[in-house]
Amino acid sequence: MKKRVEGIQLGKTAFLLIDMQNDFVSWTPYAQSIVTDLAKVLKACRANLVQVIHVIRHYTEDGSDVELPRVENFLKRPFVVAGTKGADIVPELAPTEGEPVIIKKRWSAFFRTGLKVLLEEKGLDTIVVGGIFTPNCVRTTVYDAISYDIKVFVLSDGTASEDPDVQDANILDMVNIGVKVIQCRDFLRAMELDGNV
Amino acid sequence: MKKRVEGIQLGKTAFLLIDMQNDFVSWTPYAQSIVTDLAKVLKACRANLVQVIHVIRHYTEDGSDVELPRVENFLKRPFVVAGTKGADIVPELAPTEGEPVIIKKRWSAFFRTGLKVLLEEKGLDTIVVGGIFTPNCVRTTVYDAISYDIKVFVLSDGTASEDPDVQDANILDMVNIGVKVIQCRDFLRAMELDGNV
Repeated sequence: MKKRVEGIQLGKTAFLLIDMQNDFVSWTPYAQSIVTDLAKVLKACRANLVQVIHVIRHYTEDGSDVELPRVENFLKRPFVVAGTKGADIVPELAPTEGEPVIIKKRWSAFFRTGLKVLLEEKGLDTIVVGGIFTPNCVRTTVYDAISYDIKVFVLSDGTASEDPDVQDANILDMVNIGVKVIQCRDFLRAMELDGNV
Repeated sequence: MKKRVEGIQLGKTAFLLIDMQNDFVSWTPYAQSIVTDLAKVLKACRANLVQVIHVIRHYTEDGSDVELPRVENFLKRPFVVAGTKGADIVPELAPTEGEPVIIKKRWSAFFRTGLKVLLEEKGLDTIVVGGIFTPNCVRTTVYDAISYDIKVFVLSDGTASEDPDVQDANILDMVNIGVKVIQCRDFLRAMELDGNV
């Protein structure tokens, strides 16, 4: 018998895809390596009417909205500048018409964005998080979600870091605070067992 | 010649002491080991009129305000319950009359607290962070501070984790996003060179 993932109610769940933009994904093969699995999850979410929410980062070319410790590097080699190809989501995970795309300027998907209100409006109390990079945008989003009493699942093989040791250390820290860490196949199985298709 | 720490203007700086409460400090000798150095820093801040801000956590005994993934453990063995000795700041770092004590319910010192407004009101744009635990309350506070364009210094030997590997991994992640990591003696030296006494 296949094991259920406890706590995922598909109708109350959003699949968050964080920062899967061309520039970021090109930084490391570890980011590229999760695209295929995330595309499978994305397809299954759409088929099973699980809410998909894309969260991406946009900066202005002059660096005026970049985090202070990052400005110097940004100005040397700008990235995810709004309107450029580098800021687009990778083709395999591109949003379909009508899928929400939330633009953020900081690490957390909740920081000065409409994400919390969107989840409330749609009656969603659980997020499954995939994307990059685990120590920054993924992790801050997870901690903020818990702070808001939103239930959180993190995809260990649907998130990536620029270094495997960093990935492991961050997953461990999240496990230590009680975050539920699952694999893409666990989420796929939950949809297979409880989904519409 | 003694080296200055660039970027610390004492009159614009707050020293944040996070969660140095009896219950948390008793969890691990690593937390206990930073108390003496933090007490030196605290004393120097007071002497040099550097703003000190204590940030602590309070929970209600019934667990109703505890983060969801933490409720089960909390109910088995409650900690930092408001009004108990365990919730008090350790004697060596106890606030003096008039020093702000900010109470938080979540990891970040900024999450639903008055910290940001307090810093603005006092004209402070820089924080030096000490306290526990590095992967949770220290780190989320640091990421939020940067998100608000507040300058941040983290005391590598004035913060602690329950495990030295976790401490090192978290310090590395913060260095990687451009956080300035210094030692207690660097901050003490800045006060010695530029302070009032």
